[in-house]
Amino acid sequence: MTESVHTNIDLALVHFPVYNKSGDVITSSVTTLDVHDISRICRTYAVDAFYVVTPLETQQKLVRRLMDHWLEGYGSEYNPTRKEALLNTRVVSVLDDAVADIARRRGEKPRTVIPSAKPFPQSRSYPEVRAALRNNDPHLLVFGTGWGLEKGIVERADIILAPIDGLSGYNHLPVRAAIAIILDRLLGRDTRAE
Amino acid sequence: MTESVHTNIDLALVHFPVYNKSGDVITSSVTTLDVHDISRICRTYAVDAFYVVTPLETQQKLVRRLMDHWLEGYGSEYNPTRKEALLNTRVVSVLDDAVADIARRRGEKPRTVIPSAKPFPQSRSYPEVRAALRNNDPHLLVFGTGWGLEKGIVERADIILAPIDGLSGYNHLPVRAAIAIILDRLLGRDTRAE
Repeated sequence: MTESVHTNIDLALVHFPVYNKSGDVITSSVTTLDVHDISRICRTYAVDAFYVVTPLETQQKLVRRLMDHWLEGYGSEYNPTRKEALLNTRVVSVLDDAVADIARRRGEKPRTVIPSAKPFPQSRSYPEVRAALRNNDPHLLVFGTGWGLEKGIVERADIILAPIDGLSGYNHLPVRAAIAIILDRLLGRDTRAE
Repeated sequence: MTESVHTNIDLALVHFPVYNKSGDVITSSVTTLDVHDISRICRTYAVDAFYVVTPLETQQKLVRRLMDHWLEGYGSEYNPTRKEALLNTRVVSVLDDAVADIARRRGEKPRTVIPSAKPFPQSRSYPEVRAALRNNDPHLLVFGTGWGLEKGIVERADIILAPIDGLSGYNHLPVRAAIAIILDRLLGRDTRAE
């Protein structure tokens, strides 16, 4: 098993409150594939904990059952890299529970970092956020599912990050792809300056 | 619908010949989610065509049925961003068919770019490949599924790209996440130099 590297970064994937296609605030369903993919991506970039945020008890049970299978059950022997990825995955009811858990673990509340297409007073560029993450203060990267995080949560973020713009004007990346790209931009080795 | 931006870059996802966990050369199954995710990622970074490569006729039919549903059927109205993503997706039997199709479309064979963890004489850094893609020569980015592309294909690549190394020594990204990160590094706006 790969040695653990601890960083000051945690990540949350939020299923409530988020918008649906029509602009209603809803609770989106947990996608088990997101849990696996994002756990692997977080592990690759040494994110400390990955919080799956859903208030629905049935959905929480689904994630816990999935984790039990791969951490303890047959899956742990069948696919050890999946097991390793899930070791730092946790389930909480609301985003504040993730913040509280981090405050308890680290002795300090994290600053929240949320991507948004809209400009805010607390909007920062990728190099600025990359630099901010290099100090030792705890930071929590927060991503919404569905059609995006409820705007009150976004407005209360400590740091707003520009969204990913590709080259085509088309911007409909799956959240798991957006997380992969953003973690590489913020935490990856700087391969462009080689 | 977003206006089409044409580039000199195409991408192939190969299901044969690839390795399985035991090191046998096999044909991996097409994951419909890979088709959707990678189509969206390619569209975001203005990749011209996305080739799903599988010699199995049943698997080719599966991809075509999926595409028909989202391009022509009920899905095209339900989710137009998914339709738009799939417009440039194609199914071919072998990698050489993708190369031949590109040669026919562009009047010139593409140079192949393949990521590999091993060093080769044709290994290049991300900045070198990023610069190479900026000229007008056609390039085909080739990714394997399963436990990776059969080594003969890798050895014949025109350019070998370093794999993604995160921060933790853990390197088991899903192929759809690796493609997202690599396209952002090679084609994305240079947000680190802002």
